[in-house]
Amino acid sequence: MSGNLNISIDAMGGDCAPDMVIEGLELARQGHPNAKFLVFGDEQRIAPLLSKFTELSKCCEIRHTDEMVTNEDKVATALRGKRNSSMRLAINAVKDGEAAGIVSAGNTGALMAMAKFVLRTLPGIDRPAIATVLPTQKEDVVMLDLGANVDCSAENLVQFAVMGEVFARNVLGLSKPSVGILNIGEEELKGNDAVQSASTTLQAIDLPISFYGFVEGDDIGAGTVDVVVTDGFTGNIALKTAEGTAQMMGVLLKEAFQNSLLGKLGGFLAMPALKKFKAKFDPRQHNGAMFLGLNGICVKSHGGTDAFGFSHAVGVAMDLLNRNINEDIKADLEWLATHPVTTDTDLVEEK
Amino acid sequence: MSGNLNISIDAMGGDCAPDMVIEGLELARQGHPNAKFLVFGDEQRIAPLLSKFTELSKCCEIRHTDEMVTNEDKVATALRGKRNSSMRLAINAVKDGEAAGIVSAGNTGALMAMAKFVLRTLPGIDRPAIATVLPTQKEDVVMLDLGANVDCSAENLVQFAVMGEVFARNVLGLSKPSVGILNIGEEELKGNDAVQSASTTLQAIDLPISFYGFVEGDDIGAGTVDVVVTDGFTGNIALKTAEGTAQMMGVLLKEAFQNSLLGKLGGFLAMPALKKFKAKFDPRQHNGAMFLGLNGICVKSHGGTDAFGFSHAVGVAMDLLNRNINEDIKADLEWLATHPVTTDTDLVEEK
Repeated sequence: MSGNLNISIDAMGGDCAPDMVIEGLELARQGHPNAKFLVFGDEQRIAPLLSKFTELSKCCEIRHTDEMVTNEDKVATALRGKRNSSMRLAINAVKDGEAAGIVSAGNTGALMAMAKFVLRTLPGIDRPAIATVLPTQKEDVVMLDLGANVDCSAENLVQFAVMGEVFARNVLGLSKPSVGILNIGEEELKGNDAVQSASTTLQAIDLPISFYGFVEGDDIGAGTVDVVVTDGFTGNIALKTAEGTAQMMGVLLKEAFQNSLLGKLGGFLAMPALKKFKAKFDPRQHNGAMFLGLNGICVKSHGGTDAFGFSHAVGVAMDLLNRNINEDIKADLEWLATHPVTTDTDLVEEK
Repeated sequence: MSGNLNISIDAMGGDCAPDMVIEGLELARQGHPNAKFLVFGDEQRIAPLLSKFTELSKCCEIRHTDEMVTNEDKVATALRGKRNSSMRLAINAVKDGEAAGIVSAGNTGALMAMAKFVLRTLPGIDRPAIATVLPTQKEDVVMLDLGANVDCSAENLVQFAVMGEVFARNVLGLSKPSVGILNIGEEELKGNDAVQSASTTLQAIDLPISFYGFVEGDDIGAGTVDVVVTDGFTGNIALKTAEGTAQMMGVLLKEAFQNSLLGKLGGFLAMPALKKFKAKFDPRQHNGAMFLGLNGICVKSHGGTDAFGFSHAVGVAMDLLNRNINEDIKADLEWLATHPVTTDTDLVEEK
């Protein structure tokens, strides 16, 4: 709904909810003074937290419910059994037009299932995808899907490419982001049929997408392209492998500095430089994965984040609302639907 | 062939071959004085290089051929058209029992195809897998498959688990390595059928494998298990994503130190500590991917490595020969073939 900047908040999702959520909203409010929040959850717990923040209280409306989705809930249980949960009611508010987007730090699977069921996918999108922004050697990169779809067809990957490109234009502010499909580089094995066929289509379509071709795992960190498209199984594992590698290197670097007197001294002197370095990989700075392809903005915050991280996720939702990202996606998909794929051999020749 | 410690060497594979190869052999010889090398390639180029190393010359036998596989060769071209290449003749020597293993830094796809065609898989193994050793926060981890098989069935994954466990016992020297299957962690989506079914089988079989269950991408760097099993598409992308992340962090860390005077001074003082840290991630220290599951030892060195890295790959081959790894794999697989999988519900219950 154009002009509607209300965001519904699942106040009960996340390891330190609702405290972390309310403190995060206060931080988000400071950066987005026009925001209005519909806060779903246990009023008994939320009201005292809100009362600490006078300005925030003015732009929040509490919607009480006793029910909540836990991280232990199976998706089916949550979907069928928790229709009055803070998560579900927050999503319903988007469906009903009361809010234009929702942010939750709760159970990812349940959130995806409920959002898909209630909001439905945009016309031309078969499946929503989870997208996020990651740091690289150069500029940030958008990667999707990160776990919503284990098996993906070529059509799914093409739709992800369209959505990822629009996301990068809006969130990274690029005029013509480059898009690559994640693949393996061995000569013998050029990946599965889905990536091959998606690549052929993306080379053939006339949409103004800057399609780079295939990229490999090390191209993510190298910043070779602005958007990396992959299936949810590979994307989730690549994302977590990158996170695990960064964490491993952080731990071993710390150990290296602490293992000698010179190392300790050097580390002390270089502290400001190291802090800046660390900040670049602060997961809170990249918190907020977007469920792309739904009728409405749905942003998933990491469950273990703090108020600062949650405020970043709310910021992502606000940005996407302000920029009307779904209108751009719809326009691109309508264009795609009415313009059949060109299959001139010139165009489909491998890059 | 027990007792045969001859290794055949593709002297023409690799970016800086044959110089890098011969210099690498000299380094390898120092660590393995019993080794004998059959060196396949252009005698005109190899002989002058060898003549620089008196001791090495004594344990090398040059087998001349003009033909070589290039990195640009398609797999089919190499397999059908280059039957007298240094790569192919080096593999043939293993088949003929002249050598017990082969090391090449050449075209990976061609090497895999030729080795599979000439050496055939071990009884009970449907497909060979590429395995390597990676650094983690704790001890090193074995990961496979890294690109030999894009699509893998549950049976393939179970065979990879058996081979990976034997590899870890022999190369990492662990008495009971733990084995995990790479999967995604979202509640809704517990991965594809292959990983689910492989996990059920590994929980049910009576082989003395310490099966941990599923691991996620960040468990690789955390060192949660000793062996990570996955399909070749996911494994290749996870490996390269980890390499790319490590490289990105190295570049950004260097920039951080150089961006301020204090950073430069601190970095200078901490140099010895930083060097040790860097050494842990030196890809040359982990050079040498093993093609597991073939009748013979086949080790692939990185094409871009230097003499030190190549010597490490030769060392891996020597270790595997000395330990008779294939006999262990065969024994486990024979055991598996004669002991039907137990499917008591107690055992297959999800961990």
